[in-house]
Parts: sequence; C-alpha cells; structure tokens
Amino acid sequence: MKLILKKNAYGKNAVNLSKIIRHPTYHEFRQISVNVSLQGDFETAHTLGDNSKILPTDTQKNTVYALAQAHFVDSIENFGLYLANYFITNNPQVTQATIDIVEHPYRRMTFDGEPHHHAYLGGGSEKYTTTIVQTGSRIVISSGIKDLLILKTTDSGFEGYIKDQYTTLKETADRIFATQCEATWTYATQKLDFTAAFAKIRETLLKTFAHHKSLSVQQTLLAMGSAVLEENEAVSEISLIMPNKHHIPFNLEQFGLDNNNDIFIATDEPYGYITGTVTREQGNEE
Amino acid sequence: MKLILKKNAYGKNAVNLSKIIRHPTYHEFRQISVNVSLQGDFETAHTLGDNSKILPTDTQKNTVYALAQAHFVDSIENFGLYLANYFITNNPQVTQATIDIVEHPYRRMTFDGEPHHHAYLGGGSEKYTTTIVQTGSRIVISSGIKDLLILKTTDSGFEGYIKDQYTTLKETADRIFATQCEATWTYATQKLDFTAAFAKIRETLLKTFAHHKSLSVQQTLLAMGSAVLEENEAVSEISLIMPNKHHIPFNLEQFGLDNNNDIFIATDEPYGYITGTVTREQGNEE
Amino acid sequence: MKLILKKNAYGKNAVNLSKIIRHPTYHEFRQISVNVSLQGDFETAHTLGDNSKILPTDTQKNTVYALAQAHFVDSIENFGLYLANYFITNNPQVTQATIDIVEHPYRRMTFDGEPHHHAYLGGGSEKYTTTIVQTGSRIVISSGIKDLLILKTTDSGFEGYIKDQYTTLKETADRIFATQCEATWTYATQKLDFTAAFAKIRETLLKTFAHHKSLSVQQTLLAMGSAVLEENEAVSEISLIMPNKHHIPFNLEQFGLDNNNDIFIATDEPYGYITGTVTREQGNEE
Amino acid sequence: MKLILKKNAYGKNAVNLSKIIRHPTYHEFRQISVNVSLQGDFETAHTLGDNSKILPTDTQKNTVYALAQAHFVDSIENFGLYLANYFITNNPQVTQATIDIVEHPYRRMTFDGEPHHHAYLGGGSEKYTTTIVQTGSRIVISSGIKDLLILKTTDSGFEGYIKDQYTTLKETADRIFATQCEATWTYATQKLDFTAAFAKIRETLLKTFAHHKSLSVQQTLLAMGSAVLEENEAVSEISLIMPNKHHIPFNLEQFGLDNNNDIFIATDEPYGYITGTVTREQGNEE
Repeated sequence: MKLILKKNAYGKNAVNLSKIIRHPTYHEFRQISVNVSLQGDFETAHTLGDNSKILPTDTQKNTVYALAQAHFVDSIENFGLYLANYFITNNPQVTQATIDIVEHPYRRMTFDGEPHHHAYLGGGSEKYTTTIVQTGSRIVISSGIKDLLILKTTDSGFEGYIKDQYTTLKETADRIFATQCEATWTYATQKLDFTAAFAKIRETLLKTFAHHKSLSVQQTLLAMGSAVLEENEAVSEISLIMPNKHHIPFNLEQFGLDNNNDIFIATDEPYGYITGTVTREQGNEE
Repeated sequence: MKLILKKNAYGKNAVNLSKIIRHPTYHEFRQISVNVSLQGDFETAHTLGDNSKILPTDTQKNTVYALAQAHFVDSIENFGLYLANYFITNNPQVTQATIDIVEHPYRRMTFDGEPHHHAYLGGGSEKYTTTIVQTGSRIVISSGIKDLLILKTTDSGFEGYIKDQYTTLKETADRIFATQCEATWTYATQKLDFTAAFAKIRETLLKTFAHHKSLSVQQTLLAMGSAVLEENEAVSEISLIMPNKHHIPFNLEQFGLDNNNDIFIATDEPYGYITGTVTREQGNEE
Repeated sequence: MKLILKKNAYGKNAVNLSKIIRHPTYHEFRQISVNVSLQGDFETAHTLGDNSKILPTDTQKNTVYALAQAHFVDSIENFGLYLANYFITNNPQVTQATIDIVEHPYRRMTFDGEPHHHAYLGGGSEKYTTTIVQTGSRIVISSGIKDLLILKTTDSGFEGYIKDQYTTLKETADRIFATQCEATWTYATQKLDFTAAFAKIRETLLKTFAHHKSLSVQQTLLAMGSAVLEENEAVSEISLIMPNKHHIPFNLEQFGLDNNNDIFIATDEPYGYITGTVTREQGNEE
Repeated sequence: MKLILKKNAYGKNAVNLSKIIRHPTYHEFRQISVNVSLQGDFETAHTLGDNSKILPTDTQKNTVYALAQAHFVDSIENFGLYLANYFITNNPQVTQATIDIVEHPYRRMTFDGEPHHHAYLGGGSEKYTTTIVQTGSRIVISSGIKDLLILKTTDSGFEGYIKDQYTTLKETADRIFATQCEATWTYATQKLDFTAAFAKIRETLLKTFAHHKSLSVQQTLLAMGSAVLEENEAVSEISLIMPNKHHIPFNLEQFGLDNNNDIFIATDEPYGYITGTVTREQGNEE
C-alpha cells in the first residue's frame, strides 16, 4: 500500500490590520482581516521536513502589513489582487495563492447632519468579503456580504407544503421572515469600481428582500439572486445562504389572551438553512 | 460550626422575545432578552427541598411573554417596571425582584430617503439595557448602552506617564482611540420619557467622545460622564467601562518604509480596561 | 439573458438532541447536534413559491427526534445512515440527503476508581463528527474529530525556510507546537464498529503527534495522516486541518532576564493554517 | 451642581501567558490569563489628563510576563499574591491592586497507562480562577472553578411548586439535572497548599452533586456549598452559580411513541439561573 499526499495548502489567517487614509477633509478608517493561503511544490516539507521552499506564515503576515501602506488604498478587491499576484510572482514554487479579506465597516459619526472629521461608529455584524484566487496568471474574484441581519414583519408566508406523520407546523400566510444573509458573487472582470459595484449589489439585495411577496425562503432567495444578476452585468454568478432565524408565535391562547400575531419567541437554534446559486445560461456568456 | 445560607436568588435568564407593534403607517419591530431574578423567603427550598414558595422559572418565562402583549408597548424601562411590580405584588414571599432587559435595536430599511413600512436591518453589536430593582415598594432604575464600538483616528494621545524598568511603550501625541463602551446610569425618577432620554444621552456620549482632545482614556471617560450629568437632570449617576481596543502601529521602518502613522495591528487581547463612576455631590441632591 | 437556478439545498440545522440509554449497570448519556440537508426537485418552490414538494424543516426536526428513540442506539454513524436513508426513501423528490452529526462527548464521573452510575462531566471542546451523504443508493461516510486541542512543549522546530526582505521570524530547534486539530476521514465500508474505529484513530492521532520529532507542522500532519491510514484498513482517505496556535517567546532579555525558553505569549490571532489530505494510491484500491 | 468622580479603576486585561516548567522527569505546561486592576490616587489623570501617576497598562502587562519567570512556579494563588504585592509596594499612589487569574488546565497525554513526558491535551471548558485583592497590607483571596459542565441523568426532581394562571410546567420526580457550575470561595489564610486545596474542593463539589437526591437546584446548591465548608477548614465562604441547562422531554406521544423519558431537546436559552452563598456563623469565626 502506498500513501499519497493529495491536496495541501498553508498560510496565515486572521492578519488583523487597520489603516487610516487621511483625505483633505476627513480621515477614512478601514479595518480588515486577511487570510493568505498558498499551494504549490511543498512535498518535501511534508515528507522530509525540508523547509527550503516554505515562505513562513510569519513572513506572509509581515508582507501583508508592509504592502498595505502603498497598496491598500481603495477596495479590498484591489488589495487582494495585488497580494495574490505578489505571492505568485515572488515565489516560483507557489502555483496558487488565495487571499481572503473580510472588512469590518465603520461609518462616520454624524452630528447635525454633518459627518465628523475623524470619529467613527463600528460594531455591526455585517461584513464585506472578497476572495481572490490566482492560479498562475488565471484569476477568480468572488466578493460578498456576510452576517447581514435582515427581517420583515409581513409579506411572508409558508403554505401548501408536504404533510406527513411528523408534521406539526401550522400553515401561515403572515409570518416574520428573518435571516442572517450571506451572499457571494463572482465578478466577470478585474477592471471595475468594486466599491461602487458592492454598494449597488447590497442595495439590490435589501430592496428585493423588502419588496418581495414571499411564499417561501427559496422563492425570495431566487428573487434576490436574480435581481443582482439582472442589474449587474459584471456579476456572472451569485450564491446565497439564508438561514431562517425563526420567530415562533408564543401560544397566548393557553392563557386566555387573543392571538394577534404579535408576540414571538426569538430563537437561534434549530434553524432552517436554505442555500442556492443563480447563474447565467452558458450560451449567453460566449 | 454552624453554616448559614446567606444571599440567594433565582430566576429565568435569556427570555428572548420579539414583538410587532402595528402602527397605522408602519410596523415597529422590537427584540429583547429578559432576565428575571427573585429574592425572598426561599430558605426551605434550600434546606428541605420544599418548593411550596417557589414560582418556577418556567412560569416566570411564560409570565414575561403573556404580559408583553399588553405591557411592552414603548420603552424597556416601562415594561421592566411593570414586570418587577407584578412579581412583587403577586408573590408575598418575594422581597426583591430584579428585571434585566437587553434590547437589540433594529432600524427600518430606507430606500430613496423613505423608511420602509415593514423591513428592518439588525445585527449591530450596540444594545440598550435596563435593570429594574424593586425591593418592596422601593424602585431603582438603571439604564444603559452596551457594546458601543466607537473609534477616533486622532485627537488622542498618551504621554507623561510613569517609566520604570518594565516600560517599553512609546509616548505619543497622536494615536487611535477605540473602545467598546458600556455606560450605565441611574434615573432619579420613574416618570420620564425613557426613549427620548436614552436617545439624548447616547448623542451626548458620542458627541463628547468625538470632540474631546484626549490626553488619556480616563480624561475622556470623565468628560463623557460629566456631560451626561450636566445635560440630563433625570440622571443621578453614571458609570462607564471603556476597554482600550488597541490599534498598535506596525513597525514599517524595519522594512525601510516610512512611518506615516497609518498602518496598525488591530488587537483584541490584551486590552486596557478603564472604569469610572461620576455622580452629583450629595449636598445638591437634597 | 436567461438565469438558471443551479445548485440548491435546504434543511434544518442545529437539531440539538440528548438521549439517556439506560443500561443494567449505568446510564449512558449522549448529546448530539444534527443537521439535515436535502437536494432534489425543488425548482418550483424557487420559481413559483409552490411548496408541494417541500418537506418543511420543522418536520425534518421532528423526524430526527422521533427516530432517535429507536435508531440512535450506538454510533452517530449508524444513526446518520438511518436518517439519510429515511429521507431518501420517503421523499421521491429528494435525490440527495446529507446528515451531519456533531457529538459532544460526556464522560462518567469517577470516584475512588469507580465510574458513577449516572453522573457525567462534559464541556470539552473536543467533538466527534460524522457526515453521511446518500445520493440515491450511493452512500459516503466521513467521520472526524474537531477542536482537539493538542500541545507539545518540545520535539518541534522550524528552520531552513526561505528568507526575504520581510522575514523577521527567528529559526528555532525547540518551540511549542500547539494546534486545534480537525481531522476528517472517509470510511471505505458501511459495516463497521464505528465507535471502536473512532477510538483507535483518535489514539493514533494523539500518539503520532506526541512522539513525532517535528521539523514542521506539515511534516507532523503527514505523519499523523499516514499513521491513521496504515493502522486502519477501513479508512480510505484522511484530511487534517492544523491551525498553528502560536506561543511566542516573550522577550525577557530586554529586562535583563535570561531567556530560558519558558515564558510565552499565548496568542489566538493571527494563526498559521496548515491543511493536507493523505490518501491511498489508486492502484491499490482495486 | 458639582460633579464628583467616585470609584474608578484601570488596568490590563487578558494578559495571556504560557509557561513551561521543566521537571526532571517531565515538562509541566501552564496557560493562564491575568487581569490587573489598580485603584488609587488617579484624580488628576481624569480631571487634567495628567498621567504622572499612571503606570501604563502596557507596563503592567510587561511586568506580569517578567515576574512570571521567577514567581509563577506553582499555584495561581501564589503568583497572584506576588503580583498584587508588587504593584502595591512599587506604586505609592496605588491603594488597591486586584489580580484576577484564570487558568486553562492542560492534562498530560497518557499512553498505555504512562503519562507522556511533554505532550498535552487541553480544550476543556473548565477553568480554575483566583482573585487577589490587596488593599494596603490587607489581602483577600477568592478562588474558584468556572464553566464546570456537570450533569446527572436521574436522582433529580422538581415538584410541589406554586401553580398560577401562567403555569404550564409539569411536575416530575425524574429529570436531567445539568448545570455549568461556577463556584467561588474565600480562603481564610494565605498559607496553604492552594493546589491541593483546590483539588479537594473540586472533588467535594463533584461527589456531592453526583450523590445528592435532588428535590430542587437550590437544595443541591446548598448541599454542595455546605459540603465544601464542612470538609475544608481553610474555606470561610462559598458562592455557587448554577444555571439550569434544560433538557426538555420531547413530546413523542404526539407521534404515537412511548414516552420513556429518554429523548430530550437540549437547550441553551432560556435557562434557570440559581445562585447562593453559604458561610460560617459569625460567632464560630472568632
């Protein structure tokens, strides 16, 4: 019996970096977390403990900080593209470099309608993400939004489903629809105002969620994904993860109170987990 | 040797409740987590396992949901006051009832300047809190804000401190000041528009933080606490917890790069932990 | 432009279930968390909101609890196999059912060398996992161990790596090696004493980690994976994730103290992230 | 109106430190997290931003690492006592120093009955704690155990409680009793083998929990606290926090299955929260 080392990769995760970009009229504050992962010719590190082709993860970390000064100047996509290319170009043994960046957005404090020069509010669960995979000279850019907690109090129902001997759920034409949405989409181009594209996609996701008359999470998921593709030519595919954060009507009738569909048990677990990918028909891409 | 059961308490924690309040022009969505804690004559439950004076925590939970329909209609303070009084009034064996409520704020989605009728964004770390302690007929109301992540990129320094053999920190007149602020204040009255008071106090905390020329976290903490007391007669005392979320300048000079005070290591641990309480002089309260 | 719904799936996550199995001489306590995910003919749920082929996630949850009484009687693998087959068999529209089970191990309290009849200690980070994927009648079983925090204080070094302009790491022949190991392996058979197999694989992982003279994380990873394959015929492939939980020597020399390689800064982030898969040569499998 | 700065304190939290203590026959590995908090004459730091009496939290951190080499040699209590005294003695402006230490226990791997020389398993939720408060020359030592997840599958009931209009809980003579126990006790002396004392107290807590015929959480809590005081003269008082981690019987009857009291929903929230303090009668302490 012979054993084979198949896929392997290594890198540094959670390189937490913040940057002040000083504009004439205000300070821009950015906070990101970068993961670097390299694939390539690392066989002898595994078999012999020969590290001569290993760029230490500590050095990867230093590289991210050092390059951020000149090259993290606008979108996380552009910084990621620079980093991936840097590791590929400077390390012949590396065949594939993957850069993941998560951005924690901060928004300027506003007083009397005026955004403050240098004071920020952070702390939202919502995060912006990008993954750059460079394999030789081939590049794939996937960006996204994560932990976007969205909720609507009506225009959502769930009826007409299968009933079997384990069914206890009651059908309803009016329920709370809450989800901690994660969306990831692929850009068809590397030349793009990624910041503007992101803002537009986020707006489309929110608007579609808010206005959809939902008959199921699946239906709303497809509507959201389709809207993004219809309104953004630069997006070639989008995947959505929409866990159903259940708000379960509390049984007030057992205490002689009216059920006004207004008091709910807010639960974390268990939760429905609905995922789907929407893409363009292949023929159209040619 | 005789052993004594000293202080004891019991109750239900994390009663997670959401409510839709349907207004003529929009739906209001609220999500809270309620803790109930009771003190009183529970000696025999401990010594004999006699539960005849024990209101089960499960019943406490049901009570919170049942009473929310008629009595959670505006501020968490008013709901807390109702709950505390309910448990005291209906349970002669209870000498003290403590109600803690944490609210997870949701804000309406806005499209083209118009807030949506029933779609919400949640997910911020920031939470609103209140603690109601009713002992017989005596009531203390403490409200607050928690996990408020605020940051300023300048107008903050730290110099002139003690140096000893373990000192390595460099003095600086310009550093990032970031904190996950927790503020708790006591109201001197039960008759108050708590929602409006909260909004005003929050604004004062943000504004003071943003505009202060900070020579130390301690100095900014006192400024923030003092401003709240000066601008809000209904507040008798305020405590602030301001952990210092350090953003440490990355040593770019070691790689031949200029230090522009722009690239930082964002750290979670260890962290400075600064606390203080500001109150009114006793003589003035009479 | 035509849009297509590509891959999609839905199910219930975090079905948290505990069971007492009453043996003649003691009580066995088990706690698991089950995820169900279904793929199949769900197109019209997405396009039309037609739920007639949707088995609600609430019903999936009920099914897990109901079937646990008769069918969760030994290993999580056997329960997972039963569940996957149940959903496939009873739902013709389902082409693939995936069951993930995470077990939180509890161990019996022991007093004076005797395990107690019904008292347990839990709370370890270590978890046992299995994933059953049934596609029609084809079944893949992957089991594993997660959050296994293992550490050695010596017999680990890291030298001879690439140096470039961003290198600051010092070579060392003696460092702490700590990792929160995650291992996942595929079983080549469905007829197995999974509980015994798991115990043996876990022992192999620990023993190899402890005894290996490590020149790199990669080398130890390969040694651990290879040992599992060599000692367990039923395992056809194993993947390991070994994040490097760095313990960084504290610079005591700056305070005039000896460096005895004994005082370390224990860090969580950033962390090295090393992954690899070891498999059997294809020719041998025939 | 005059405002007063009341209580204030500052320090460094989460100083995460690991140490190897090399014994002739094995390596001892220890990992702790230290909090330092100072109170004293810091008025002008708050009012004027005058830091001349401020020992920076960064220096406090360095001090902990530097002193660990010579003084963290056995129990966390002895290290905490040294640190508290160090800060008080070297800083005349400090009137009170509080040292909190949390230890993450690691246990040696054992193969064929033999503990390994230098390989460890960590990752349990259980943690050992101590808090040293030194005010001038007065010292209070409180130690404890935290996140001790203990569970029993029988010998626990809950009956005879109050019923009112919101009661839905059913009485039971046989339920699962699970708690994530936190115990904190005060030592009456500074001269003690703290490590041995801790081990004995932990054993008493486990044994009492396991053997108690519980009629309520309160009764078991008192039994556990009393047993610790009865068996340990050096302990003057003990407080216990015993959240009730509910395992709720799943309603199998609705599906025509027998209720064998064997299938449960394992829940995290909401949870009962039971606390109590047991102490010695004052007269006996003289």
